Amino acid sequence: MRTTVLDVATGNRPAVHDLTAECATFVSGAGSGLLNVFVPHATAGLGIVETGAGSDRDLLRALDDLLPRDDRWQHRHGSPGHGRDHLLPAIVAPSVCVPVLDGELALGTWQSICLVDTNIDNPRRQVRLSFLADAS
Amino acid sequence: MRTTVLDVATGNRPAVHDLTAECATFVSGAGSGLLNVFVPHATAGLGIVETGAGSDRDLLRALDDLLPRDDRWQHRHGSPGHGRDHLLPAIVAPSVCVPVLDGELALGTWQSICLVDTNIDNPRRQVRLSFLADAS
Amino acid sequence: MRTTVLDVATGNRPAVHDLTAECATFVSGAGSGLLNVFVPHATAGLGIVETGAGSDRDLLRALDDLLPRDDRWQHRHGSPGHGRDHLLPAIVAPSVCVPVLDGELALGTWQSICLVDTNIDNPRRQVRLSFLADAS
Repeated sequence: MRTTVLDVATGNRPAVHDLTAECATFVSGAGSGLLNVFVPHATAGLGIVETGAGSDRDLLRALDDLLPRDDRWQHRHGSPGHGRDHLLPAIVAPSVCVPVLDGELALGTWQSICLVDTNIDNPRRQVRLSFLADAS
Repeated sequence: MRTTVLDVATGNRPAVHDLTAECATFVSGAGSGLLNVFVPHATAGLGIVETGAGSDRDLLRALDDLLPRDDRWQHRHGSPGHGRDHLLPAIVAPSVCVPVLDGELALGTWQSICLVDTNIDNPRRQVRLSFLADAS
Repeated sequence: MRTTVLDVATGNRPAVHDLTAECATFVSGAGSGLLNVFVPHATAGLGIVETGAGSDRDLLRALDDLLPRDDRWQHRHGSPGHGRDHLLPAIVAPSVCVPVLDGELALGTWQSICLVDTNIDNPRRQVRLSFLADAS
């Protein structure tokens, strides 16, 4: 299986980081099948959303409302409220598949594949891209 | 890869639209592998839920509570509060895989594959179905 | 396609049940491809989270806040508030894919594949594991 690991700098602030260009490059020339994007971390997820029009910041705000960064969580280490980052991947899953047609991502016009990383204690992240070719 | 695009009329009200029959027809006779259902839109997602017993309406209500349709969002265009529709796919992902066994969806008795579309400004939607055959 | 169904005892309390060992055993020796984990139930989901440090309990608490177990839901049967369990799979999807490299799950150090089951009326659950081999 063709697979690679991206090294992504997300910094020390919550981030919605667009991976679409890297994904498109990875599947270029790959034929047809499924791209799986997978984040091997317990405090990050993947969202397919529109970027550049405010929704990236809106998403971080919504996640702050849904999973408050306060002292209610039993899982405590790192920055105050970090326990909520450990719940993120249950809501924003760390794995997503995108159809690939003749080496091109079958994304809609406004869709971007984004790493969603609210963890401010971990400025670098890995993301695994894997291409599964169809057997038929 | 065998793939097709459905054209779905979701109307101008929030909708949970059952796609199970179309998915079953698509994989009929296809052997074993994975069905990927993918929505190429930035304001819709896919949920595998029970329909017809109230949960479709309950889901729309829950999403109204989790992602309020008000003026808090930076992404503003279309109907008031539409910015929340752009957050939906981060929570209800626009891609899901279902195992297929000898041309049949391996769904549970009460599961339906549903397009979740809270966007009232876009009455028609596309959904891509792709079947990935196992190579072993 | 290589596929099997696990029978999981989740008991009559909300549970985050770690399936990682069973998944690892299933793909052992399987080559490279994608593991699909699928729950054929309408009131359970799958989360890839850290276990054993409090996040399992935190997740159940967060879900109680996000999807309250009260009488607001139209879908009513079983225990009071059970309608919220029917919304769980829209938020915590019942299907997830994990890359497999030479028979090993490509999980991160702190990631576990977990059945998330808030339904207290159904003490036994099935989980389907399927391995899709790459064709290239």
